[in-house]
Amino acid sequence: MANKKLLEVFDNAYPQRDYTIIHTAPEFTSVCPKTGQPDFGVITIEYIPDKLCIELKSLKLYLNSFRNDGIFYESVTNLILEDLVEVCKPRYMLLTAEFNVRGGISSVIEAEYVKEGFNLKQK
Amino acid sequence: MANKKLLEVFDNAYPQRDYTIIHTAPEFTSVCPKTGQPDFGVITIEYIPDKLCIELKSLKLYLNSFRNDGIFYESVTNLILEDLVEVCKPRYMLLTAEFNVRGGISSVIEAEYVKEGFNLKQK
Amino acid sequence: MANKKLLEVFDNAYPQRDYTIIHTAPEFTSVCPKTGQPDFGVITIEYIPDKLCIELKSLKLYLNSFRNDGIFYESVTNLILEDLVEVCKPRYMLLTAEFNVRGGISSVIEAEYVKEGFNLKQK
Amino acid sequence: MANKKLLEVFDNAYPQRDYTIIHTAPEFTSVCPKTGQPDFGVITIEYIPDKLCIELKSLKLYLNSFRNDGIFYESVTNLILEDLVEVCKPRYMLLTAEFNVRGGISSVIEAEYVKEGFNLKQK
Amino acid sequence: MANKKLLEVFDNAYPQRDYTIIHTAPEFTSVCPKTGQPDFGVITIEYIPDKLCIELKSLKLYLNSFRNDGIFYESVTNLILEDLVEVCKPRYMLLTAEFNVRGGISSVIEAEYVKEGFNLKQK
Amino acid sequence: MANKKLLEVFDNAYPQRDYTIIHTAPEFTSVCPKTGQPDFGVITIEYIPDKLCIELKSLKLYLNSFRNDGIFYESVTNLILEDLVEVCKPRYMLLTAEFNVRGGISSVIEAEYVKEGFNLKQK
Amino acid sequence: MANKKLLEVFDNAYPQRDYTIIHTAPEFTSVCPKTGQPDFGVITIEYIPDKLCIELKSLKLYLNSFRNDGIFYESVTNLILEDLVEVCKPRYMLLTAEFNVRGGISSVIEAEYVKEGFNLKQK
Amino acid sequence: MANKKLLEVFDNAYPQRDYTIIHTAPEFTSVCPKTGQPDFGVITIEYIPDKLCIELKSLKLYLNSFRNDGIFYESVTNLILEDLVEVCKPRYMLLTAEFNVRGGISSVIEAEYVKEGFNLKQK
Amino acid sequence: MANKKLLEVFDNAYPQRDYTIIHTAPEFTSVCPKTGQPDFGVITIEYIPDKLCIELKSLKLYLNSFRNDGIFYESVTNLILEDLVEVCKPRYMLLTAEFNVRGGISSVIEAEYVKEGFNLKQK
Amino acid sequence: MANKKLLEVFDNAYPQRDYTIIHTAPEFTSVCPKTGQPDFGVITIEYIPDKLCIELKSLKLYLNSFRNDGIFYESVTNLILEDLVEVCKPRYMLLTAEFNVRGGISSVIEAEYVKEGFNLKQK
Repeated sequence: MANKKLLEVFDNAYPQRDYTIIHTAPEFTSVCPKTGQPDFGVITIEYIPDKLCIELKSLKLYLNSFRNDGIFYESVTNLILEDLVEVCKPRYMLLTAEFNVRGGISSVIEAEYVKEGFNLKQK
Repeated sequence: MANKKLLEVFDNAYPQRDYTIIHTAPEFTSVCPKTGQPDFGVITIEYIPDKLCIELKSLKLYLNSFRNDGIFYESVTNLILEDLVEVCKPRYMLLTAEFNVRGGISSVIEAEYVKEGFNLKQK
Repeated sequence: MANKKLLEVFDNAYPQRDYTIIHTAPEFTSVCPKTGQPDFGVITIEYIPDKLCIELKSLKLYLNSFRNDGIFYESVTNLILEDLVEVCKPRYMLLTAEFNVRGGISSVIEAEYVKEGFNLKQK
Repeated sequence: MANKKLLEVFDNAYPQRDYTIIHTAPEFTSVCPKTGQPDFGVITIEYIPDKLCIELKSLKLYLNSFRNDGIFYESVTNLILEDLVEVCKPRYMLLTAEFNVRGGISSVIEAEYVKEGFNLKQK
Repeated sequence: MANKKLLEVFDNAYPQRDYTIIHTAPEFTSVCPKTGQPDFGVITIEYIPDKLCIELKSLKLYLNSFRNDGIFYESVTNLILEDLVEVCKPRYMLLTAEFNVRGGISSVIEAEYVKEGFNLKQK
Repeated sequence: MANKKLLEVFDNAYPQRDYTIIHTAPEFTSVCPKTGQPDFGVITIEYIPDKLCIELKSLKLYLNSFRNDGIFYESVTNLILEDLVEVCKPRYMLLTAEFNVRGGISSVIEAEYVKEGFNLKQK
Repeated sequence: MANKKLLEVFDNAYPQRDYTIIHTAPEFTSVCPKTGQPDFGVITIEYIPDKLCIELKSLKLYLNSFRNDGIFYESVTNLILEDLVEVCKPRYMLLTAEFNVRGGISSVIEAEYVKEGFNLKQK
Repeated sequence: MANKKLLEVFDNAYPQRDYTIIHTAPEFTSVCPKTGQPDFGVITIEYIPDKLCIELKSLKLYLNSFRNDGIFYESVTNLILEDLVEVCKPRYMLLTAEFNVRGGISSVIEAEYVKEGFNLKQK
Repeated sequence: MANKKLLEVFDNAYPQRDYTIIHTAPEFTSVCPKTGQPDFGVITIEYIPDKLCIELKSLKLYLNSFRNDGIFYESVTNLILEDLVEVCKPRYMLLTAEFNVRGGISSVIEAEYVKEGFNLKQK
Repeated sequence: MANKKLLEVFDNAYPQRDYTIIHTAPEFTSVCPKTGQPDFGVITIEYIPDKLCIELKSLKLYLNSFRNDGIFYESVTNLILEDLVEVCKPRYMLLTAEFNVRGGISSVIEAEYVKEGFNLKQK
């Protein structure tokens, strides 16, 4: 079951600087809540860290924890964004989920978080 | 027969955020009202949900319900936009329909909806 | 002989909305008025309809009616634009004609119509 | 010998409209004035006509008339621009010449003409 | 062990001019601090020198010195930026690190330095 | 030995116009001053001439004269820019040097000259 | 309903020669007999005619007649081959059907007919 | 009307040698005998001449003479082969005709002639 | 005027070995004997030398000498083959000439020479 | 000056097996014996070692030693083959040299060595 407690962070050693981290996870899988069939997609996480960074191995375990969950595309995307924001409290985060063809239809979901007061200039 | 009652929605669990959903359906088919011959095309639906999301399987069934309808390209495009807007009341929706060659001519139709008062900034 | 009477229109069922229609016709052919030899090209018609849409089969027959006419590239392009504008009175129309190599030279002609008072914002 | 008298024009039947004509001639050849060896290049002519258009066959003959002339790349480019501007008096013209490798070096020359008082808005 | 003392500089012979230097090092390798497994990535360094330039062979030796260090992606990227800035004191520097797939996830980190008072106009 | 005396110029026959000349020389080679091993790169020269143009064959001979010189990438780039500017006194010049992989690292250097008082508008 | 009576033939005017005809129909659609959902595929017909050729418009109508039939991929492929062989009695025919992704799986079916006594040498 | 009398030949100056000539004509057009609508295709002629070669300009005029003829794909292909074989009596000829999409179906026809006694070894 | 006396040879220093030389000349031009207009093509010469090799600069001058000759494609191809064979007496030679579009038709001519007694095994 | 004494070898540790080694050197340069101008090319060495392998750094130094030698393409290719065969006595070697455009002509030379008694079966 999807479990944000699997996520670990470490201290951002360079908080004085706005810099960008992009993780691309092409092996995401969950289950369709209507049909019980597996869904497959690519999750891309782009963020500007504040005081904490997401530890990569824990991210893998966290994403893997969706494997047998029945969940809508839209909810997966927003839930991952919420969990990651809660755990690492970034200045900025963009979550993109690209799902494979189902019933002849492919889908992409994009959701964004900007920390209050953060100026996302020319992002 | 095209039937918007086939469309189902579910609650958008994250209405506090403007995020984007893109569904691409490359297996759309209807019938030419002039010749009675089948038409084929790709329907792309891009939207920012408000309180409701379109359920994917119901979208497939809805699009399939055009299969034996005689309808112009321009009407198909706008009708799908109208039906989807009526059912899920999004903040923004862009409907693109790309139709295969007929009589040596291929066609693309694009139609857009913006909810009153919604600010589509840099979309 | 090129004959705009072949063009048929039908009522735009969605005049309340500015939407875009693009027809691409890669099998256009006419005759060079200097040499009598056939010319070949791709005609692309992009428009925003007002009260009327161009019926596709009639467009094919209209474009085919140039088959044995001797006419300059520049005149073909502008004439088609004029005929289509006269018949369907669009809010906006862009006509692009890309002609095959003749005497070692290929040619592209682009001509545009904007209805008086129509604001072509970010087109 | 390069001879602008070969150039013929015909009346622009649609002077009320700013429209664009692009001719691409990939078989241009002249002779290097230093070595006497042939040069080869692609000439691209983009223009907005005023009262006159360049006739295509005469353009071919004009470009062919450089075949045995010894002339620098920079002069070819500007001379063609000058000749075409003189003969068809356009509102705007852009001449691009891309020459093949000579002595291990390839070259591109671009020169532009804008009629006095013509507003080249978003060109 | 990563050792910035390996870095050598030489005098920028043209300090009167803002010009750009880009080094791309596709053979960077370090060790994951969690798993002990090797990481591989591409390091790209883009900078505008002030009084000093980075000597290329010393850069290679410096980058090679990370080979057996256990270090997070985010730290590698920022540490290299800090070391290079300290040693060559540039007007501007952009460090990009693209890491290969680990646990099904690939990562990119970007960090930037702008010298106080330097105007990075249209960069 | 690099020798700017090899460079020849000829009168720009069209000084009344700002036009652009781009020479691309993919066969540049010099020698590394640290290791004595050959370096290879692509030199691209983009300029707007004033009263003089660079003669192409002399440019080839000038670039070839670096063949056995030991010189840093950064110095090569700026020296060629300085020599060409001195000899042809252009309104604008951009020098780009892209060097092949050495020690697993590839490098690009860009340097620009703008004549005092010249307005490089939308370059 | 699939109906081979829609197929028309015409006399092969050149029976003295073995020659090859290939028709590719990328808009084939039928219905899955298990789920009632539409299937989509590309049908390719390669044949050497004997005394009769398949008329193209009738082939289109015949293929369209499968539109609302529930039928397995394997049966579609063999049934089309049987019908076409019965109607035009070719010397050789190869039927290839490539079906779109269903449940994450795409399928290709190939079936061949060789007239008794026909020597298909190096086909 | 298609007219083989338009075809001209000239003496093959090198009959002592088997060599290959390939002409590709991508602007072929004729008319569908069923619908009266234009067809478009690419005709490729590959042959080994014996005593005569086909003159290229006459080939163009001959192919153009099909412009307003109603004729099946299969007959076009074989008729061109027959006409060319009759006129230039080659050692070998392969005729390939690739026709554009009609009713959603594209078609390719291939027909071959080998002179009696000619050994087409590894062709 | 085409002049085989321009061709120079030098001794093949390695006649004990069958090896292959391929020269590709993409800037060939001659004149059409029917229309007087220039033709353009790519000449490729592949050969196995015997006692003599073709000197490259003389080959360029020889190919350039066709510049103003009126000659058929087929004759150009065979004549170049004959001249080169006569001058360098190779063990094997393949001449390929690919000509640009004329009247909507492009052409390729291939001619081959094998020295008597030479065994062109798996060429 | 080209110097085969620069070449070093080391013992092939796996002589019991026929295996293939391919070295590609894209930075080869020598000098044209006719014009004194530099030539540039890509040297590819494919071989099956017997008892000895070519040491890579020595190969670089050997190829660099041609830098200022005036030598024909054909001789370069065969000379490198001879030197390498003499030094490492392989079972099989294929030398390919691809030279850049000179006078509008690019050239490829291929030469092969097969040890007496070695059976190059399916090479």
